[in-house]
Amino acid sequence: MPSMPISGNDLARFSGPQTFMRLPEATSARDIDVGFIGIPMDIGTSWRSGTRFGPKQLRQESAMIRPYNIQTGAAPFDALECSDLGDVAINTFSLSDTIRIIEDTYDAFLKDDFIPMTLGGDHSLTLPVLRSIAKKHGPVALVHVDAHADVNDEMFGERETHGTVFRRAYEERLITADKVFQIGLRGTGYTADDFNEAADWGFNQWIAPDIWHKSLTPLAEEIKSRIGDQKTYITYDIDSLDPSFAPGTGTPEIGGLTTPQAMELIRGLRGLNIVGCDLVEVSPPYDPSGNTALVGANLMFEMLSILPGVPVR
Amino acid sequence: MPSMPISGNDLARFSGPQTFMRLPEATSARDIDVGFIGIPMDIGTSWRSGTRFGPKQLRQESAMIRPYNIQTGAAPFDALECSDLGDVAINTFSLSDTIRIIEDTYDAFLKDDFIPMTLGGDHSLTLPVLRSIAKKHGPVALVHVDAHADVNDEMFGERETHGTVFRRAYEERLITADKVFQIGLRGTGYTADDFNEAADWGFNQWIAPDIWHKSLTPLAEEIKSRIGDQKTYITYDIDSLDPSFAPGTGTPEIGGLTTPQAMELIRGLRGLNIVGCDLVEVSPPYDPSGNTALVGANLMFEMLSILPGVPVR
Amino acid sequence: MPSMPISGNDLARFSGPQTFMRLPEATSARDIDVGFIGIPMDIGTSWRSGTRFGPKQLRQESAMIRPYNIQTGAAPFDALECSDLGDVAINTFSLSDTIRIIEDTYDAFLKDDFIPMTLGGDHSLTLPVLRSIAKKHGPVALVHVDAHADVNDEMFGERETHGTVFRRAYEERLITADKVFQIGLRGTGYTADDFNEAADWGFNQWIAPDIWHKSLTPLAEEIKSRIGDQKTYITYDIDSLDPSFAPGTGTPEIGGLTTPQAMELIRGLRGLNIVGCDLVEVSPPYDPSGNTALVGANLMFEMLSILPGVPVR
Amino acid sequence: MPSMPISGNDLARFSGPQTFMRLPEATSARDIDVGFIGIPMDIGTSWRSGTRFGPKQLRQESAMIRPYNIQTGAAPFDALECSDLGDVAINTFSLSDTIRIIEDTYDAFLKDDFIPMTLGGDHSLTLPVLRSIAKKHGPVALVHVDAHADVNDEMFGERETHGTVFRRAYEERLITADKVFQIGLRGTGYTADDFNEAADWGFNQWIAPDIWHKSLTPLAEEIKSRIGDQKTYITYDIDSLDPSFAPGTGTPEIGGLTTPQAMELIRGLRGLNIVGCDLVEVSPPYDPSGNTALVGANLMFEMLSILPGVPVR
Amino acid sequence: MPSMPISGNDLARFSGPQTFMRLPEATSARDIDVGFIGIPMDIGTSWRSGTRFGPKQLRQESAMIRPYNIQTGAAPFDALECSDLGDVAINTFSLSDTIRIIEDTYDAFLKDDFIPMTLGGDHSLTLPVLRSIAKKHGPVALVHVDAHADVNDEMFGERETHGTVFRRAYEERLITADKVFQIGLRGTGYTADDFNEAADWGFNQWIAPDIWHKSLTPLAEEIKSRIGDQKTYITYDIDSLDPSFAPGTGTPEIGGLTTPQAMELIRGLRGLNIVGCDLVEVSPPYDPSGNTALVGANLMFEMLSILPGVPVR
Amino acid sequence: MPSMPISGNDLARFSGPQTFMRLPEATSARDIDVGFIGIPMDIGTSWRSGTRFGPKQLRQESAMIRPYNIQTGAAPFDALECSDLGDVAINTFSLSDTIRIIEDTYDAFLKDDFIPMTLGGDHSLTLPVLRSIAKKHGPVALVHVDAHADVNDEMFGERETHGTVFRRAYEERLITADKVFQIGLRGTGYTADDFNEAADWGFNQWIAPDIWHKSLTPLAEEIKSRIGDQKTYITYDIDSLDPSFAPGTGTPEIGGLTTPQAMELIRGLRGLNIVGCDLVEVSPPYDPSGNTALVGANLMFEMLSILPGVPVR
Repeated sequence: MPSMPISGNDLARFSGPQTFMRLPEATSARDIDVGFIGIPMDIGTSWRSGTRFGPKQLRQESAMIRPYNIQTGAAPFDALECSDLGDVAINTFSLSDTIRIIEDTYDAFLKDDFIPMTLGGDHSLTLPVLRSIAKKHGPVALVHVDAHADVNDEMFGERETHGTVFRRAYEERLITADKVFQIGLRGTGYTADDFNEAADWGFNQWIAPDIWHKSLTPLAEEIKSRIGDQKTYITYDIDSLDPSFAPGTGTPEIGGLTTPQAMELIRGLRGLNIVGCDLVEVSPPYDPSGNTALVGANLMFEMLSILPGVPVR
Repeated sequence: MPSMPISGNDLARFSGPQTFMRLPEATSARDIDVGFIGIPMDIGTSWRSGTRFGPKQLRQESAMIRPYNIQTGAAPFDALECSDLGDVAINTFSLSDTIRIIEDTYDAFLKDDFIPMTLGGDHSLTLPVLRSIAKKHGPVALVHVDAHADVNDEMFGERETHGTVFRRAYEERLITADKVFQIGLRGTGYTADDFNEAADWGFNQWIAPDIWHKSLTPLAEEIKSRIGDQKTYITYDIDSLDPSFAPGTGTPEIGGLTTPQAMELIRGLRGLNIVGCDLVEVSPPYDPSGNTALVGANLMFEMLSILPGVPVR
Repeated sequence: MPSMPISGNDLARFSGPQTFMRLPEATSARDIDVGFIGIPMDIGTSWRSGTRFGPKQLRQESAMIRPYNIQTGAAPFDALECSDLGDVAINTFSLSDTIRIIEDTYDAFLKDDFIPMTLGGDHSLTLPVLRSIAKKHGPVALVHVDAHADVNDEMFGERETHGTVFRRAYEERLITADKVFQIGLRGTGYTADDFNEAADWGFNQWIAPDIWHKSLTPLAEEIKSRIGDQKTYITYDIDSLDPSFAPGTGTPEIGGLTTPQAMELIRGLRGLNIVGCDLVEVSPPYDPSGNTALVGANLMFEMLSILPGVPVR
Repeated sequence: MPSMPISGNDLARFSGPQTFMRLPEATSARDIDVGFIGIPMDIGTSWRSGTRFGPKQLRQESAMIRPYNIQTGAAPFDALECSDLGDVAINTFSLSDTIRIIEDTYDAFLKDDFIPMTLGGDHSLTLPVLRSIAKKHGPVALVHVDAHADVNDEMFGERETHGTVFRRAYEERLITADKVFQIGLRGTGYTADDFNEAADWGFNQWIAPDIWHKSLTPLAEEIKSRIGDQKTYITYDIDSLDPSFAPGTGTPEIGGLTTPQAMELIRGLRGLNIVGCDLVEVSPPYDPSGNTALVGANLMFEMLSILPGVPVR
Repeated sequence: MPSMPISGNDLARFSGPQTFMRLPEATSARDIDVGFIGIPMDIGTSWRSGTRFGPKQLRQESAMIRPYNIQTGAAPFDALECSDLGDVAINTFSLSDTIRIIEDTYDAFLKDDFIPMTLGGDHSLTLPVLRSIAKKHGPVALVHVDAHADVNDEMFGERETHGTVFRRAYEERLITADKVFQIGLRGTGYTADDFNEAADWGFNQWIAPDIWHKSLTPLAEEIKSRIGDQKTYITYDIDSLDPSFAPGTGTPEIGGLTTPQAMELIRGLRGLNIVGCDLVEVSPPYDPSGNTALVGANLMFEMLSILPGVPVR
Repeated sequence: MPSMPISGNDLARFSGPQTFMRLPEATSARDIDVGFIGIPMDIGTSWRSGTRFGPKQLRQESAMIRPYNIQTGAAPFDALECSDLGDVAINTFSLSDTIRIIEDTYDAFLKDDFIPMTLGGDHSLTLPVLRSIAKKHGPVALVHVDAHADVNDEMFGERETHGTVFRRAYEERLITADKVFQIGLRGTGYTADDFNEAADWGFNQWIAPDIWHKSLTPLAEEIKSRIGDQKTYITYDIDSLDPSFAPGTGTPEIGGLTTPQAMELIRGLRGLNIVGCDLVEVSPPYDPSGNTALVGANLMFEMLSILPGVPVR
């Protein structure tokens, strides 16, 4: 019988360990199916910082989530052994060194078979995670929900930042280009090529106005059918959401997704062969009510609820 | 001619008495049609506290509301004498004693014929209010807008908390089970039975995904036709709204109603034989901009605008 | 070749001059096509103050906007020379004197041919700006996005405040009454005449419930076809938006526009002969996350993107 | 037996009427000894606004004050009948008209013999209050605790603002120049004459560095002996305090008084023939914790505690 | 060799476990010298709530504390094995039941010999902790730093709340009356008896004005010499500090201690035979910067630094 | 006649350019005596980030400072031509590259003779500034006001961070060891050597308890007499102040300096041959009221007021 989060009836929700959903801690992925890993960093961000406190606040707000997804019937803890693997020991003074450390840490964890669910931290972390994932699984399909395509070539001369992740991932063949789905893109840019070039590589892109006022259930269906049974990674940037839903982030852009849309999208992906997920760019200092982290923790739980093997009852 | 709120042209809106909409104060319900009553409590809450300051802030933000509902044409002060009856003198150190005090206070007020409109306070208060209402009016139909069904049997061994209200109300026959309408349910739970059991009693439930992206005018029509002319109580939990609209609450859940939906729902209920209303769970410490209370005060005014006898011009 | 905003690749976005979009400063409108002008005032407001810091914060948040409108293809800086003309030297102790100063300042600027884009400040400023605009261009068509019609006759005996602007503009024939379009009206009032009288003058009004749950692209089309080629002024009150999108404002009203709707509306007006725009009522002290100003700055950029002469690529 | 504030044992402190210290309301000063009067204005301020909400928040925080001054033994409610007279109906769009209204209102109140204790509002209000006081009592001695001397001749051409009050009061002989005591002056200025000129009139000034690290009890003794039995007015600007104690104000200056010093100063003035007091410049939007208003309300209570006739037990 | 907190050079301070000072967790006190225990409650408070989140935030801010007290030379981890024992499983809906649970929990823990250091939570918790302490150690000397004497007989008819703790402790002979030292008392009250009665029991009291502008080192010396070698409990209410130092608390009173005074007082008590400590009344929702919890965590560390057996190097 | 800041009588203080004190901008130091330079960075911080927005907010709050130091008589603009030189174009993704860029930028500026006054940014910036200063002036005396000695050897293997600055400066002979004065040191550490080693090099250190409750005028005298006429650099870390005065900083430590002490210290250094100053570690996201930046801007003005050549009148 898998471990359960501590129940709110046993210990008041405002107390207890600060693990994700108050799950057990673990130091290795040996005997688990899913591991939550924090990567507390913000040195890869270009505008507001603060995401170094993201993992802490995601875990804090996750304390209110109960184990059963009453809206979809998913019961992840019926089938999956889940633990919190703690935080990666980054070097907060060097982005390049931190990226190396993340890759090494994931390489070590991924000697065991489990699904890593990463709590960010800025989006730079997805590059080393994908490097490690690709070593184990080969190139993956990618569902990338974000306000920004993050396909710059460089920023201030640096090639590995939160704005260059998916160009690098494409160049390094960590992802299958025509199975990349970028949803929620918007904001402003420098040239039309900002998006077009990635489209030429094969990336599939939906800018925000394409999906305003709509249910995203059909889009999820379309993505799922195009990915088929390929191994898939989901990277969820909280700034894909409109700032009214997620003010606490580093580079907010107006006109974004709603939380119902985000939940429709994730729930609609149930059935994919997911090998990893992350939730990035929650910046607590810009989130006075804590509700951005609440959204982030819940979306993490929605991703958990669609992992392979999770029963619906 | 009924009393009017103090006009913003007579006294700047940021001044004057701190009664609801700057209406006259009263100490008994003798000569009034509608009485606003504060119940400043938060000791029945399970996650974030702070609703003890809810009545104060609801009244403060109500100062901006003018007497005529320009969107619907409702003019409540043309017909109804409205006063602010102040706050219930609760015992902040004992939830059980407070629940008893509330019932006693409402029993005393309800010797007079008037409609109580309660400013909360956490949702525990609805149980003693319903007890008092049922003594006067018999079992009532219930429109319950909320993220949570509040039908737990007990919490930490207690049977009267903000999460058990409607199971108690059902058991005590304060409400007519098949005329209970719960709208906006969501969040997470422990088992599928969290909702199913109440459905078996006859409760009618709409979970949030059922109503995303939709006008709630049709739903209001349906509820109204099913209630008919039975006496009806409306309990509005501010956490039914999405946290983007109402961050200042104790147990926020993502993916909730929008304020247009809330207004459509309330406006659509015009014609029901309403005998009482409450607006609960506004928690000012988590509401830095004050806009959650602004929403709450406006929804209170929308409920006032559909009371029996209010003319439309 | 027109001037460009400082690029985020040349200077980190959190640094550099505090001009709008980090454009060059100018002291006269001699050689420019578009001039951004701040009017830092809040003494014309009736509820919460604070808009005196609006221009500062709009400029601060504008630093994140890049020059190309990736969603629409508009490239304003390909064709238009844009500068920041600084702030009007208002008299913060006298509303009437300030209104006179604004008119004089705009009269002086408008000896040159350029489009003024005004950063408010409270809505009182639009009256003297329209007076100056009308001197140069004659009566203009008006697109007025706002929660309030601002057609009071007087407030506390004063005839020039943020609530009386468009009655004065109508009386003084600064605007063409049947080419006035008021969108987003809501809130509460005193009598049905609050809106009806202006409708009788010819004003075209859409209250908020008329446009809930809808794309505003068709509305923009309708407005555009009815205005035709008449010179047009756009006045955008940030409180037209729902407080969830724009909490930082002085007189918030629930049930307002979404930012997607605001962008659809503005984008749909492309083709109009616009001679001036303003964005008013951003109140930083009520905007802890800074995101109201972010919305305001982006809507300003959207208005810039539809000015006559802006190419789409 | 005088009226008492509502006890915290009868009604929880977070409830009840929003009068000062939950005292009774009154509409005239006929039968009272002391009347608390709010003047909710901020249109006389030169930097941050927001003091229009000062009276509301001072009253809100005053709810925690109990009737007996346990540190000094003063028991004001043993001897004095105290009421809350509500707010002055200012014209928020005109500073000059507001100043006239205040004077008229105080003239009317002062037909009765009582001590007005004014809750501000920006410091401009002290000028019309002093005009009214001087009509009744003749020129008064003045204890003026403030970061700023407020003796400018004009600001933006205006002669009646929060920075010119005491020059006007001097010119109009509302105050006895050599019995004016200005304490806590600091900040920066334009020339040495900023203070010197007032010193030449006879004003007695203590700049902040004169009193750092010191008890103010000796200073209070000195002031008291120099004033003797002349009728005295105390005007307390909350910005006299260091911003660490009172962040919520419009023109904070570093290096100010501590609250112990403020209490020593006020307590030391016991015995003066005080005919009026005010507490000004509390700006709630800049006071996230509410503690500036808490300080203000307590200093108001300290001033109440030294009024003529208050017994010590 | 005792366990050490995780070093900031091994793991960035913004990551890692949320235990006090990132110490190891333990479930029993079997093999430890000092145990940190959280009691997350706020249902015993009479004004602002929120202390239920106190233990969480104290632990969060404690992450910045390094193991060596550089100012005093104390090195607690050289000698003492310290662990975090987690939170007491309170019943958040019943104050009386919670008080019983706390006593039972401490009774169980205190079967082992260790010093409990409690992270509050509101001050009500000190009563059951003292009951348990007295069972093990007999009546204790008490150093009680607080703005309030907490010697009411009852509040709203309840005898066990955060305002009645030390009357109960006196009546139940949990403390040695003439070895009770109350420091920092202030605020307002109902009668002179508020303090006098406790003085008659033998309590030693210093009201705030007695200690303004002074080093507290001599006071600590005096207390220490009067206690001698009796077993001693220290209860530190964060509201003893001035609200400028500790805004995040439920019943702030102006004119309080400074943090240097607090540190002098605690440091001066080195040598006492301390058997337990608590730090109570930190209320995070009223502490936007987190610095109240930072103060609280540091004072906890100062108390740890003076425990019997801690070496100085 | 030197340039003056824009007067608050010419342009309201909440408007105008966002330069320091609204001084003119300049792009080179050719014709100036003093240049204000922003270094917007936070990637060298170990706990809370956010100082990248420090220069912006310091400039914003500086708008309230008037040109004459009324407390000391200093009139810097009578004698010194002062400009704002804008921000250094750092690389926000690489700390090491940024440190190189800063040095290069200062080298270029310092080809002209002027005094650089730097607005930080985290404390890492002082190392490259000192490198450039030392190239021009040789080793300098150093007045270093800070909670931390910043003499670590490395952090996470990095040798150039905000915690290692003064060890590097010592090793590289940028400073004269026995003319280094560190004031305000406190917090916690790892061993006694944290401070002792630097003392052995010759550094003069005052830990916070040495200076509690005292005027710092005598200390300033002592430092001045020991430095004599050697060229001197002042580095002022805002975290030297107690968090009650300066909450908005990255690594706050309780028990720090007061602002009166900080002003006494700086004012007492008048007469030193100062060749550069900086003010670092202001972190706006942790400074909700903006008052930390207000303190910082005022301390910058105090340092300006003691530069060589500033007259006193």
